[in-house]
Amino acid sequence: MGSHALQYSSKRKRGMRLASKSKAKLKIIPLGGVGEIGKNMTVIEYGKDIVVVDCGLIFPDDDMPGIDLVIPDMSYLEKNAEKLRGFLITHGHEDHIGALPYALRNFNVPVFGTRLTTALIEHKLSEAKIKHADLRCINPGDKVQLGCFAVEFIKTSHSIAGAVALAITTPVGTLIHTGDFKVDYTPLDGEPIDVARFAHYGAKGVLALMSDSTNAELAGHTQSEREIGKTFEHYFEIAKGRVIVATFASNIYRIQQIADVAIAHGRVICFQGRSMVNIAKVAGELGYLNIPEEKIVEVEKLRRIDDEKVCVITTGSQGEPMSGLFRMANASHRLNIGKGDTVIISASSIPGNEIAVSRVINQLYQKGAKVVYDPMADVHVSGHARREELRLMFTLTKPKFFIPVHGEARHLYQHAELAEGMGVPGDNIIVSEIGNVIELNRNSIRVNGSVQAGSLMIDGNSVGEIGDVVIRDRKLLSEEGLFTAVILLRKKTGALVAPAEIISRGFVYLKNSEELVQEARDLVTDLASRFETAHRSEWSSIKNNIRSSLKNYLYNKTKRTPMIVPIIIEID
Amino acid sequence: MGSHALQYSSKRKRGMRLASKSKAKLKIIPLGGVGEIGKNMTVIEYGKDIVVVDCGLIFPDDDMPGIDLVIPDMSYLEKNAEKLRGFLITHGHEDHIGALPYALRNFNVPVFGTRLTTALIEHKLSEAKIKHADLRCINPGDKVQLGCFAVEFIKTSHSIAGAVALAITTPVGTLIHTGDFKVDYTPLDGEPIDVARFAHYGAKGVLALMSDSTNAELAGHTQSEREIGKTFEHYFEIAKGRVIVATFASNIYRIQQIADVAIAHGRVICFQGRSMVNIAKVAGELGYLNIPEEKIVEVEKLRRIDDEKVCVITTGSQGEPMSGLFRMANASHRLNIGKGDTVIISASSIPGNEIAVSRVINQLYQKGAKVVYDPMADVHVSGHARREELRLMFTLTKPKFFIPVHGEARHLYQHAELAEGMGVPGDNIIVSEIGNVIELNRNSIRVNGSVQAGSLMIDGNSVGEIGDVVIRDRKLLSEEGLFTAVILLRKKTGALVAPAEIISRGFVYLKNSEELVQEARDLVTDLASRFETAHRSEWSSIKNNIRSSLKNYLYNKTKRTPMIVPIIIEID
Repeated sequence: MGSHALQYSSKRKRGMRLASKSKAKLKIIPLGGVGEIGKNMTVIEYGKDIVVVDCGLIFPDDDMPGIDLVIPDMSYLEKNAEKLRGFLITHGHEDHIGALPYALRNFNVPVFGTRLTTALIEHKLSEAKIKHADLRCINPGDKVQLGCFAVEFIKTSHSIAGAVALAITTPVGTLIHTGDFKVDYTPLDGEPIDVARFAHYGAKGVLALMSDSTNAELAGHTQSEREIGKTFEHYFEIAKGRVIVATFASNIYRIQQIADVAIAHGRVICFQGRSMVNIAKVAGELGYLNIPEEKIVEVEKLRRIDDEKVCVITTGSQGEPMSGLFRMANASHRLNIGKGDTVIISASSIPGNEIAVSRVINQLYQKGAKVVYDPMADVHVSGHARREELRLMFTLTKPKFFIPVHGEARHLYQHAELAEGMGVPGDNIIVSEIGNVIELNRNSIRVNGSVQAGSLMIDGNSVGEIGDVVIRDRKLLSEEGLFTAVILLRKKTGALVAPAEIISRGFVYLKNSEELVQEARDLVTDLASRFETAHRSEWSSIKNNIRSSLKNYLYNKTKRTPMIVPIIIEID
Repeated sequence: MGSHALQYSSKRKRGMRLASKSKAKLKIIPLGGVGEIGKNMTVIEYGKDIVVVDCGLIFPDDDMPGIDLVIPDMSYLEKNAEKLRGFLITHGHEDHIGALPYALRNFNVPVFGTRLTTALIEHKLSEAKIKHADLRCINPGDKVQLGCFAVEFIKTSHSIAGAVALAITTPVGTLIHTGDFKVDYTPLDGEPIDVARFAHYGAKGVLALMSDSTNAELAGHTQSEREIGKTFEHYFEIAKGRVIVATFASNIYRIQQIADVAIAHGRVICFQGRSMVNIAKVAGELGYLNIPEEKIVEVEKLRRIDDEKVCVITTGSQGEPMSGLFRMANASHRLNIGKGDTVIISASSIPGNEIAVSRVINQLYQKGAKVVYDPMADVHVSGHARREELRLMFTLTKPKFFIPVHGEARHLYQHAELAEGMGVPGDNIIVSEIGNVIELNRNSIRVNGSVQAGSLMIDGNSVGEIGDVVIRDRKLLSEEGLFTAVILLRKKTGALVAPAEIISRGFVYLKNSEELVQEARDLVTDLASRFETAHRSEWSSIKNNIRSSLKNYLYNKTKRTPMIVPIIIEID
């Protein structure tokens, strides 16, 4: 009995240990950045350890009126906070760092990034008044151990300096996460993407690759940043007045190229736009940007300098209201752009911004400026790899499994198709949705359920308080307006105290619609007179009746259906 | 005295006649289509005669929530209705014919267009229940006399069949209006643009050219419609399941090409989407579209046909909600797109539609379909001339004066710059705004003032009733929501009858904001208690005070500024 019991017990124990060991599967859980371009955030989990790659925001689309920005729902991390070992940040773009001020209110763990990345995060946190964050500055090639994860940072190229990919070695195998990348053999910082390091891991064996899908639709190879220097040369050469260049504040390489060409043509540099001024300062201090101090002038001093000796580098390449370029085009900026000025918009329009950008271009033309922009001239190159570069990444890393990231569904599926063409079997590829739990072991990959995940909308200073109901109301209000009827009743009898009052906004211009208002008032007053004779339990059906009768009446008269809000007030 | 008087009188008479003759200047007044792509409409006026070129609509942008469509303000024509001799319609696109149902309610004059153009107008008018319109079908080469204007219609190529340019010979000289055009030497209808006729007028002398500026930013020459036939060949060749092609309903040439390739690959054709079904019928009857009747099947019969023998041609290439493709991607259409299907989106995204199109593509991928679209493959060519074609037009017509039309400011200015490069002096070029009165004589061109012109917004069945105030309200409501305080006063004393009531929509979710609501109610009640002690003349300042105090309170609490509407009701 005894030995039997022991054996049983020992069996059981061993069984449990085995189960516990095999239970500790490697999980990859995207909390954002798949099925969308924005708010990148991926949980890597094994046993008692979690690391998170990136922590970004996304700007809202037209479906979310009044929302300032959107961050990932981090409930899963909150529930597993004790496992969290750190954030690994691939680069300093908003869609990779923008949610950190929200995350770091809840999680006090180290945040790893290169010098520029951590400097940008620091600035962001100080604006959000978050102190004591544990920022750790790393260099490409550095390795850190976080719980069971050994992480190496690998140099890549992107449209911001200091971008890295990650090699995360786990108990099950090595994951490669490319971050955002392109393969630029002639980058302005002189250090191309570290192909040797990717090849090193490829030779050792890569369990799974997560790779940037942004340009997976586009054939060929993205041009080197250096290529567009020629365009700047040409337009600075022929420009007679001021040259104003709008670009992304974070594209230090671009800013360096523009400044180099401008200075070579005898111009001084003036930075405009809050984020441009800020990043020029930060990047200058860190040595990412090299412009002789005497060549940078404040806007106040430009008046004393001849137009042909001035180059303004500004924000606003997306036509954003209140940005530098927007205000210059609208004459609400002291640099009043006009005849003789050359404006170069060195960016492509992010989907959704086309009309805003077009408006600014039109205004600049109307003010007499010469405007240079994509596709008129080669003034922009992408920071993301096209299909040939993506193929190179497969050739280097030879992954067993593949998870396309950083893209809308269209980009992820095209990247998946490309992976199959590169020899990754279809069953080894997961096109994931936000919240999917992707489980891997050495031999298999599958989606095993999902966790709470999605979008937290931020409006003003409230986080996540804006619910679907509010957004739906805003949409309805914006499309059809509001029509309110105020009804005053005696509390005891239900008798009408006065005829109904009609208030409307965004529906019809009431001053021109007296007849409509009078008829609506009569209709409501008539229906509301039933309160007096009805039992209190019937009041809500009277209220519904008022709403639907008003709706029908207004629709018949105007073919529109505003939001109808009956307000019933009972008085003594 | 007598002779002197006579001389004076005769002088005066002659002077008057001369003045009247020289007063009858040729006027060109764009009522739409300059500074915008859409609602093309141009008044040509001389003495007692007016002809109007095109009469289009524009679809509203995001700044006009709830507006269905926008047409030109035709006040100037209404004031000069007795001069109007006719409408000259260059082709059947909405931005050239869409406002005719509204115009023809007020003006009973002939409308000229080619066979397809008039058929499309007829359909439009019958939907709007307008009978007895005087539609006159013309062929390219035809000439008509309208008052003092001799008009010749000249064959061009565009993305719809039946497009013509106009040569309008006036007492001052000949105007050439290109309409929308491209130079297609291998068009599908076999008849290229009539370069000889343009050259004929060029040789005789052209006073002014009005030319399509849509693609004035783009170098080179737009591809022939025929070029993309190769792309269709390729994808039909490799397709294994159904092929669904979305394109513009009006692009008959495109539809013909798709149908030809589909039939050659043993497929039948099924048209989907209201406007596609309609245009296929109209164009088939008129002989613009040639598809054997037995090859066209109704959607109900598709179930009985093998997938690889089916081609669906549908609307929805712009991601429009409720369009054929949109419903197929959302599984709200009986053709439930899924694995094995190939979807070709044969169109480019019109600016502003990019996100909607992207959403449909993403949904199709998620359903397992293969999706082919621009810029992945050459599935679309433009219907508008690029810079080399625009230069050809100058070379043919050799105009003295130039007015770029059909474009936003950016396109018009680039076209103007191109014209200067072609030898038209800068002073002979007018970049016009809507409503400008462009006066021409044989030797000069200038803008001489302007007339009432602009946009009439159409929402439901009301025309022009939606004013700026309403639109502004809708925008504010959509971005920040509404916050209403209802205040009940005794009419005689101004005493509060009850505490204030708070109603809000689209602002915060009230059920979660009890404290906020209670504090706001207390604030309003407190401020409103002043009505009782104040003189009636002070009431409006109390009301303003309530509004601004509420605004400050809410902003401090939420960092948001909803529309605040105090409602004050006086009762006996």
